[in-house]
Amino acid sequence: MADGSSETKSSNQMWGGRFASGPDAIMEEINASIGFDKKLYAQDIRGSIAHATMLAHQGIISAEDKDKIVHGLDTILSEIDSGAFEFSRRLEDIHMNIEARLAALIGPAAGRLHTARSRNDQVALDFRLWVKEELQKTEKALTGLIAAFLDRAEEHAETVMPGFTHLQTAQPVTFGHHCMAYVEMFGRDRARVRHAIEHMDESPIGAAALAGTGFPIDRHMTAKALGFREPTRNSIDTVSDRDFALEFLSIAAIAATHLSRLAEEIVIWSTPQFGFIRLSDAFSTGSSIMPQKKNPDAAELVRAKTGRVNGSLVALLTVMKGLPLAYSKDMQEDKEQVFDAAESLELAIAAMTGMIRDVTIRADRMKAAAGSGYSTATDLADWLVREAGLPFRDAHHVTGRVVALAEQKGCDLADLPLAELQAINSAITDKVYGVLTVEASVASRTSFGGTAPSEVRKQIAWWRARN
Amino acid sequence: MADGSSETKSSNQMWGGRFASGPDAIMEEINASIGFDKKLYAQDIRGSIAHATMLAHQGIISAEDKDKIVHGLDTILSEIDSGAFEFSRRLEDIHMNIEARLAALIGPAAGRLHTARSRNDQVALDFRLWVKEELQKTEKALTGLIAAFLDRAEEHAETVMPGFTHLQTAQPVTFGHHCMAYVEMFGRDRARVRHAIEHMDESPIGAAALAGTGFPIDRHMTAKALGFREPTRNSIDTVSDRDFALEFLSIAAIAATHLSRLAEEIVIWSTPQFGFIRLSDAFSTGSSIMPQKKNPDAAELVRAKTGRVNGSLVALLTVMKGLPLAYSKDMQEDKEQVFDAAESLELAIAAMTGMIRDVTIRADRMKAAAGSGYSTATDLADWLVREAGLPFRDAHHVTGRVVALAEQKGCDLADLPLAELQAINSAITDKVYGVLTVEASVASRTSFGGTAPSEVRKQIAWWRARN
Amino acid sequence: MADGSSETKSSNQMWGGRFASGPDAIMEEINASIGFDKKLYAQDIRGSIAHATMLAHQGIISAEDKDKIVHGLDTILSEIDSGAFEFSRRLEDIHMNIEARLAALIGPAAGRLHTARSRNDQVALDFRLWVKEELQKTEKALTGLIAAFLDRAEEHAETVMPGFTHLQTAQPVTFGHHCMAYVEMFGRDRARVRHAIEHMDESPIGAAALAGTGFPIDRHMTAKALGFREPTRNSIDTVSDRDFALEFLSIAAIAATHLSRLAEEIVIWSTPQFGFIRLSDAFSTGSSIMPQKKNPDAAELVRAKTGRVNGSLVALLTVMKGLPLAYSKDMQEDKEQVFDAAESLELAIAAMTGMIRDVTIRADRMKAAAGSGYSTATDLADWLVREAGLPFRDAHHVTGRVVALAEQKGCDLADLPLAELQAINSAITDKVYGVLTVEASVASRTSFGGTAPSEVRKQIAWWRARN
Amino acid sequence: MADGSSETKSSNQMWGGRFASGPDAIMEEINASIGFDKKLYAQDIRGSIAHATMLAHQGIISAEDKDKIVHGLDTILSEIDSGAFEFSRRLEDIHMNIEARLAALIGPAAGRLHTARSRNDQVALDFRLWVKEELQKTEKALTGLIAAFLDRAEEHAETVMPGFTHLQTAQPVTFGHHCMAYVEMFGRDRARVRHAIEHMDESPIGAAALAGTGFPIDRHMTAKALGFREPTRNSIDTVSDRDFALEFLSIAAIAATHLSRLAEEIVIWSTPQFGFIRLSDAFSTGSSIMPQKKNPDAAELVRAKTGRVNGSLVALLTVMKGLPLAYSKDMQEDKEQVFDAAESLELAIAAMTGMIRDVTIRADRMKAAAGSGYSTATDLADWLVREAGLPFRDAHHVTGRVVALAEQKGCDLADLPLAELQAINSAITDKVYGVLTVEASVASRTSFGGTAPSEVRKQIAWWRARN
Repeated sequence: MADGSSETKSSNQMWGGRFASGPDAIMEEINASIGFDKKLYAQDIRGSIAHATMLAHQGIISAEDKDKIVHGLDTILSEIDSGAFEFSRRLEDIHMNIEARLAALIGPAAGRLHTARSRNDQVALDFRLWVKEELQKTEKALTGLIAAFLDRAEEHAETVMPGFTHLQTAQPVTFGHHCMAYVEMFGRDRARVRHAIEHMDESPIGAAALAGTGFPIDRHMTAKALGFREPTRNSIDTVSDRDFALEFLSIAAIAATHLSRLAEEIVIWSTPQFGFIRLSDAFSTGSSIMPQKKNPDAAELVRAKTGRVNGSLVALLTVMKGLPLAYSKDMQEDKEQVFDAAESLELAIAAMTGMIRDVTIRADRMKAAAGSGYSTATDLADWLVREAGLPFRDAHHVTGRVVALAEQKGCDLADLPLAELQAINSAITDKVYGVLTVEASVASRTSFGGTAPSEVRKQIAWWRARN
Repeated sequence: MADGSSETKSSNQMWGGRFASGPDAIMEEINASIGFDKKLYAQDIRGSIAHATMLAHQGIISAEDKDKIVHGLDTILSEIDSGAFEFSRRLEDIHMNIEARLAALIGPAAGRLHTARSRNDQVALDFRLWVKEELQKTEKALTGLIAAFLDRAEEHAETVMPGFTHLQTAQPVTFGHHCMAYVEMFGRDRARVRHAIEHMDESPIGAAALAGTGFPIDRHMTAKALGFREPTRNSIDTVSDRDFALEFLSIAAIAATHLSRLAEEIVIWSTPQFGFIRLSDAFSTGSSIMPQKKNPDAAELVRAKTGRVNGSLVALLTVMKGLPLAYSKDMQEDKEQVFDAAESLELAIAAMTGMIRDVTIRADRMKAAAGSGYSTATDLADWLVREAGLPFRDAHHVTGRVVALAEQKGCDLADLPLAELQAINSAITDKVYGVLTVEASVASRTSFGGTAPSEVRKQIAWWRARN
Repeated sequence: MADGSSETKSSNQMWGGRFASGPDAIMEEINASIGFDKKLYAQDIRGSIAHATMLAHQGIISAEDKDKIVHGLDTILSEIDSGAFEFSRRLEDIHMNIEARLAALIGPAAGRLHTARSRNDQVALDFRLWVKEELQKTEKALTGLIAAFLDRAEEHAETVMPGFTHLQTAQPVTFGHHCMAYVEMFGRDRARVRHAIEHMDESPIGAAALAGTGFPIDRHMTAKALGFREPTRNSIDTVSDRDFALEFLSIAAIAATHLSRLAEEIVIWSTPQFGFIRLSDAFSTGSSIMPQKKNPDAAELVRAKTGRVNGSLVALLTVMKGLPLAYSKDMQEDKEQVFDAAESLELAIAAMTGMIRDVTIRADRMKAAAGSGYSTATDLADWLVREAGLPFRDAHHVTGRVVALAEQKGCDLADLPLAELQAINSAITDKVYGVLTVEASVASRTSFGGTAPSEVRKQIAWWRARN
Repeated sequence: MADGSSETKSSNQMWGGRFASGPDAIMEEINASIGFDKKLYAQDIRGSIAHATMLAHQGIISAEDKDKIVHGLDTILSEIDSGAFEFSRRLEDIHMNIEARLAALIGPAAGRLHTARSRNDQVALDFRLWVKEELQKTEKALTGLIAAFLDRAEEHAETVMPGFTHLQTAQPVTFGHHCMAYVEMFGRDRARVRHAIEHMDESPIGAAALAGTGFPIDRHMTAKALGFREPTRNSIDTVSDRDFALEFLSIAAIAATHLSRLAEEIVIWSTPQFGFIRLSDAFSTGSSIMPQKKNPDAAELVRAKTGRVNGSLVALLTVMKGLPLAYSKDMQEDKEQVFDAAESLELAIAAMTGMIRDVTIRADRMKAAAGSGYSTATDLADWLVREAGLPFRDAHHVTGRVVALAEQKGCDLADLPLAELQAINSAITDKVYGVLTVEASVASRTSFGGTAPSEVRKQIAWWRARN
């Protein structure tokens, strides 16, 4: 960056307090990325070592220079790891910070490292390596969360609770079955993560500024050294592409949406009115004067992280909109969005894994709620169709009258005497009582994927074999 | 929906003009989905036929009833296809419109169709079938767009143009290479589409309201009949899940972002200042008094569609945030967002496929621009490293002095006499002129994925084998 | 729009089924706006009449031509109002549809209407008039919603309910006070609406294509005739500006957020577990077999509309990002987003106004919940500070012990005998019972804006004077 | 926060490396806000001083305690200002960090500060004060940017350039006029900022946890002391409301959109193809080997900031969606979004103010471009209507033929001999040449807000009087 003219510098009052030293200060502030891209130091060094090794292998640089470079980079890695490295904002970004230090350490050989590469493919490489590792971490974290749910599902394969639609009691289900719904969600998230890795598993290094290079490099060699499936196939696209970041953010947004649904249920189920669960102390905050109060802070924060991740997705989609090829500086805004979303997602999954493992299930409250609201009315209707041969429409009509009777008498369906049931429809026999309890209701729903404990256990086994 | 009380109805003045008839009118307006979900009629009928066939096969309904149902549904399909069907908003949605018509056509047997299913799994099925077909259409459309680019890339494998970074000329590239960058982008979009189909290829029908059913249904049979890989594994998740819609929207948003970048280039390249391309009349609009003027309306509209698709993605992510399981009515907002984004994406891909096929490439203007701005300065620097053995840093310094000399003389690099070059650095020989032209520059960049025509043709062949 | 070449037309197989007739069909599909901008017909005609009247007044066209134009436009208005007008998609938009019909009705004079104006300022005018009217409608609708809350607040100024934080009972409040919180929110929305009108109350007509005109027009005259405060001050900005649409969408998004919070409370409060309210039949849907079940569909749909409005805001922000001045065709995407958000907001406010007016408040359930969970513990602590002179920290400690005692005894705070209280802290007197009931608690909170009924009534009066 | 059980702690392997110490570590990580809310320290201290002073004035605490508190807080302010203060993450947030330090400094009197207030109204106050100050800073920054444009507009009131629609040359305008379009945009932004301050100028302190308080506080006194117009009117709303943050973000998003449009123009105008402007060294980056190259990095980064601000808006809208009253922990996510957007906006305005002041206008290139493309064709058509009395339609037809002739001869309109013009239409006289030059064209457009230099100067004067 060149200096501003002295005239401009003298008129600094116009920049306001924060930018007291004039345009240069603003430019440095808006331009520098070292504040966030230093997170990429390990990837940057790894990429440079692979590049230098390939250059030497291809005879583009000497083995001696390569050794100096690798040694220098190893030293820098140790310096940064140990906190001894001094980052400079004047050197703008992580690449130039490392480059300058390398030159100081090993002298002119440092310059050879930049043969047949450019900052454009270097930044693409570093960031892609980071995102790939984050995807791998996310895969593992989701596996842990699924495992937590599988354990709770197994434990509660027979615990009945109300199945809700519109947050109104609809039909009884088992808590194990409810847990398995989340297993399906996080399982889909994991499938998306795995495919995202597949989509982006290509090495950018060697695309150079945007056109490739005339040096006889071997991009397959660097790709392999860095753990990529293959090199990218088009050098212009390579430095222009941030699909891997957008895809990470999309996946994160959908996963965060799942987490927000779980968080909402935790918040509602923790109210005194529902009382289905009791959070562990570790994942709630209390009140010094109301010892019985437990605020589900962690669940609320997980729910809120959805907003944050959605925001990052929108941010990067907006940044990339309408950018001509190849590299534009706008793309520097990619990293902070991904770093922030990754941190939020990692934290939210960890918190939820912890909450699910720790939460106390209040099976008595769940069961009491499951039985209220005539939740087995559908079972009665189904029984009338199946056992008494009524057409569906008539079965519904009869059921409506039975429920109205129970409501009027203030009792449960199972408490109505047979005579009164038969007065409504003579086809009803005492076998009907076998479907009016919540336990009978859930046990009966044995269709594939249904809520019957036997079905739930089958699905647990299916997932255990794949987790 | 029950009627409002008459008292409420009499106080209608409070609802304002639009809702003159009181709460019922508002409720009908906000609740009805037939205005948009009638788009799902074919899927709904297809699903019902599969369900009825399975019910008969399992002995849950009689073969006779099944035949009546199938015949009735076929009749309704013809009626809707031909425009003879009268939709009623009072019947709220497509499912109830078809159900009511079926009852009118075949009488009580219509009621048997609803055995062992619910509107919750029915709507999940219809929408999922629609999205799956849309994904398949998108896959095909992307293939067509890729084909258009492959043709132009082949045709222009040697056409030089400026490679831009920051919209400033950086290095010469070929237009064929630039085209192939878009092939990579749309190829990634297609890979995402294929995996999305894989993620959602499960049949929801049979999940019933949310708990599954006690009827002895065969969900594998309906899954197969409807072309799904397998049935879903958890009935609560099945009626709660809209991942397939969110994933479609995410993919559409990334694809729309690619299209917007292409659109931006078309807009900029069509200006008199750039003049790299001339749009066909079919994809531009003119002015009755300025016949030379061609407004790139189609490209601008494609660019704008990004906003629309991003908006739909945000809309559905926001809708799904924090919804407790299982079905909530909020989820009814899913369809319009997906329908709108699908239409935008389909149209944008079709428009771009047309524009790419029709556009006139002004190779002379591209070449002239490619050569300006000392775009081969990097080639000179690389030559100094490679041929004259200069360290990178020195090579840069020498190049800077050469460019400054050319700038001062107002000529191109290739126009500088050898003597003057050697005055700057004596290692320069007349072989240097071999890298100073744009043709030589692009021809030299033969690294894998580089801009050299030979490389471009290799990548075209690779893609042709996969398109 | 010019025709595509015949060659292109013959190769139509590439456009796929939907665009069978080739590029022209795609272009017409993507380009035409008549499908949605016909909504602007009244504004378009009003603007044209004002423009023609001004042109005649300034002597730019003859009085005779003006009369013909005005008469023709009035005829067209009647035709459209009555449904007799035939819109043509080939004529692309509402302006050209009306223009063509005017030419058919009055001949060459129609052409004079376009003196000193362009489609760019015409579309800006029509849309701005529409948005201004929508803002005025929104203002009125918010006033109606506020009125509904003021009525319920007055009715329930003394009805106690739990005040929640983290959806856990914190302190008792009155339902009237809770209602007034929404009055504040919707009052702020209304203030924003009023200022938005102020920001956009400028007439665009006369900006022409982008540069103004050499005809001696009087823009103040048309501004006045159309009800604007004044004409816009810069013709380039006038045709480039969509701030009024963005500001409308921002305001709508914040208002929709408020509505979603209210909707969430309605959903939660309608559960059997909370049971604080009972929705009227008009705003819920039932089940034919579970007559006691009421699904809060309308509230759920209102909650979901937030997503839709946020989506529209994101869509238009994305569309406008990075558009160079002046008019670009991208801006045609503005209208559908605003129309859709306006309809959603209008409907959501109407539905909520209805729900609030109709909802049955179950004061007994609210009161019972308000008293549970030791919700007056803070009152006890405050009493210890205020009356017994304890430092805050000590007061908290004592309260904690009292609550623990009540919890252990399974009773409310007010049920603990004085002796046991004094055993914990001897400064406690029997006056303490005066603050331990929920009624006493709410009555005591008389700070400005507090929950005491007296305070609530003061704020109701303040708002009544301003609504 | 309570400790997790020892059992959980022992199984820490499940938390992964980052959360090695188990649930507590995760909870601390997700819960702590001190990392970002320490930014509010000055506001927090200011609020506490106002509160303590009021408490003493009302006799709720003693004057002596008040003096201790104020002195202690002043000490803490100095400690933080000087960097001597040690923040602790264990103390979670800024409020508890300051509270703990105050207790350490002044002992038990510190506890009295918390009489009649809660963290809920404290955080609302701190954040509101911060946002209000940021709005005031934004107002000032916009005024500076407007001033920069007014200066350039004045300087270039007569500099002609092409007026673009669809990025195609439409009609000549003046660069001064173009600058004034931005003055209008940023002027509207400023109007929105001023009204936003008006909407949120209410003091939250005294709302306590959510219900107000029984202590005889004077909220008008604290409101006045803190510079607010008045206290808020509803304590539940006070702790639930984040409208001021959402409104700030909305306004910032619209302003950022304006900045992105300007940035796009700077990027395009800086290309060698356009060459309308030359950025100063201070706001561009160069290349060591291509000295003529100037990358518009700062403009690109400003353009990208739109994405970031839009993302923050979406994030907070999503967070707030569907939150029941009053305070939920989700709302803790509000601050980072606002801080980040504020920093981006501040920086973007500063950078643009600098760029506008520094940029070199290449009037020759602008003028040459303005004259190309028959940009005065509309002037010719208007002249034919105005001076030769042709109907508009005929005038257009004649103009089309004239342009076609010029195009065929490869000359400008003004270069066509009169005889040839008259051969097309005999009503043409030599006075027509007076409107065919770009200077004559712009000078003629004197309608209010038009591009004529005289008009531009009038608008500059109007704005100078208001800036």
